[in-house]
Amino acid sequence: MYEVLKGKDFTDLLKGNVSFVLCIGNTKTAEIPGITVAGANPDLIKFTPPADAELLYYGKCKSIPFPPATPDGKPTPALITYTALRLVKPQLFVVDSGLMIKPKIPYVSINAPVGENIYERDAMSIESVEEAFDYAKIFGREVSKNSDCLMIAESIPAGTTTAGAVLKVLGKEPRVSSSMPENPVEIKMKVIEKAASRVNSEDPLEIIAKVGDPVMIGVLGVALGSEKPVVLAGGTQMAAIANLIKLFEEKFEVNIATTKYIAKDRTADIVGITPEDANVVAVDPLLKNSSKEGLRAYEEGFVKEGVGMGGATLLAYVKGYEDAFLREIEKDYEKIVG
Amino acid sequence: MYEVLKGKDFTDLLKGNVSFVLCIGNTKTAEIPGITVAGANPDLIKFTPPADAELLYYGKCKSIPFPPATPDGKPTPALITYTALRLVKPQLFVVDSGLMIKPKIPYVSINAPVGENIYERDAMSIESVEEAFDYAKIFGREVSKNSDCLMIAESIPAGTTTAGAVLKVLGKEPRVSSSMPENPVEIKMKVIEKAASRVNSEDPLEIIAKVGDPVMIGVLGVALGSEKPVVLAGGTQMAAIANLIKLFEEKFEVNIATTKYIAKDRTADIVGITPEDANVVAVDPLLKNSSKEGLRAYEEGFVKEGVGMGGATLLAYVKGYEDAFLREIEKDYEKIVG
Repeated sequence: MYEVLKGKDFTDLLKGNVSFVLCIGNTKTAEIPGITVAGANPDLIKFTPPADAELLYYGKCKSIPFPPATPDGKPTPALITYTALRLVKPQLFVVDSGLMIKPKIPYVSINAPVGENIYERDAMSIESVEEAFDYAKIFGREVSKNSDCLMIAESIPAGTTTAGAVLKVLGKEPRVSSSMPENPVEIKMKVIEKAASRVNSEDPLEIIAKVGDPVMIGVLGVALGSEKPVVLAGGTQMAAIANLIKLFEEKFEVNIATTKYIAKDRTADIVGITPEDANVVAVDPLLKNSSKEGLRAYEEGFVKEGVGMGGATLLAYVKGYEDAFLREIEKDYEKIVG
Repeated sequence: MYEVLKGKDFTDLLKGNVSFVLCIGNTKTAEIPGITVAGANPDLIKFTPPADAELLYYGKCKSIPFPPATPDGKPTPALITYTALRLVKPQLFVVDSGLMIKPKIPYVSINAPVGENIYERDAMSIESVEEAFDYAKIFGREVSKNSDCLMIAESIPAGTTTAGAVLKVLGKEPRVSSSMPENPVEIKMKVIEKAASRVNSEDPLEIIAKVGDPVMIGVLGVALGSEKPVVLAGGTQMAAIANLIKLFEEKFEVNIATTKYIAKDRTADIVGITPEDANVVAVDPLLKNSSKEGLRAYEEGFVKEGVGMGGATLLAYVKGYEDAFLREIEKDYEKIVG
């Protein structure tokens, strides 16, 4: 079950050989108290991206002894992505887009730095952004050679705040989503306003260097390097990146797959912040029907999206797993979360 | 032009979608004076693997201002591989299989350590070998999902010596080749004998940990992880790895593509050191017909093989570039070597 929120239905792209590319990294912006719940406590937040990636390969985490969760125990969206990838078995690559902790898996290095706290200073040097962008483009090109479509996902705590700053700089309303039902809009806006005030450039890489985060470089580079169609799997962050893509290539076909939890988030505006000619699809993982409280919480506005959960669900649906999907998620939930 | 040296002709495997995976690394065994000429001088040897990889992506090196060469100016075999890949455009991935210097490209990390000097001590800890092997297997599996065949290549100075030590441990005559026309057999044998005397195990990963090198882990793992046929592109080192593969999976189909310069090396014995049921093909890049002295030197026994040169040439031939190949190599030679 999915809905075209904007543009055309691109789901046929997923019928062929899809490569799933997950870009993971960190921004020290996540260290601002109250800005993110992508981790059970502040010390664990930096482990969330590598642990998400490990979960996708192994069905369990290795860097931490349990899957990432919010402080009140809502499990990482990587759980749902894991179920989809386990069923569909697409090619999976993970890109180190600026990690604090390296994951215990094979990963692709694009020499991306960890992002600085954009409330305090520039996120990265322009030189390091340019280098990582070049490498990401090469990697995207190579993956796409043997693929019909690239689905690109992300995991970076506080990524909606850096996305908001990019949107603000681009002249869009930074109406971004959150992994919390009570979006900490005030804190985010304070960070976004201050960061955006430092920028006086329309160059996409300079904007990322000033107020973005390293995961944006990975996603942007892989997408622009690809010689095949691309689906961005995510919400607010992918919307921001989609706008940056358009600054490079006006005619680039932007396809975004996200969850209905993002679509119905009233503090956010996925339709409004995506490029005018973007195609946006929202998929319903039907978690409201789950017997597990931790999964039903998604319907109540917790977590909502991340680790390509919406896109992966869409992929599973297109490949014929729609009817079985919730049951399969619950099986994995019992095994992984307990 | 190629010749089946042993077993059956496997070249039809290369007609489909081939992924080219280059595993690069270092062993401190290369620091033994006189053991290798894979670099213009001893300080440059450690740059050879990253520079080879850069050459394949960019047609030029970035970590050093010129392509790797022997002290008397014979150019790296990466040159010939570059020409083949430029023409055929297969998917190319580079695996950091224990590098001293990271290449200026996107690369895959399997967390492999640099290899120690096997004359003095064990190459690596068994724990690090096991971890890197697991990651390499995952990477090989993922690449193979969207591919018809994996061609795996290597670049590691002094790799024939560590290969010789592995062969010795496995009870094979360590008749290994060399990048020099005068193979420094005495030095190599001294190293091989001493290293092999430390081993009392038939476990392939323990043998690598004791007397091998990190590139063996990458090649072995990617090959064993692959769900599609594999072609090992190389000479002595691939022969040693082929024997290790057989210890894991007796029925694994070993296909080796190498150059005729390896086949006609009298100090070596590519047919004798490969597994009994291996398929071995030797390809002639026809460098004897070149107007460039640096290329004709290959026919005289310099360099001979490396960076998958033989396999890449075979790939170019199978894809229809046989007639044009030498001319195209010479064009690249002029551009890259000058």
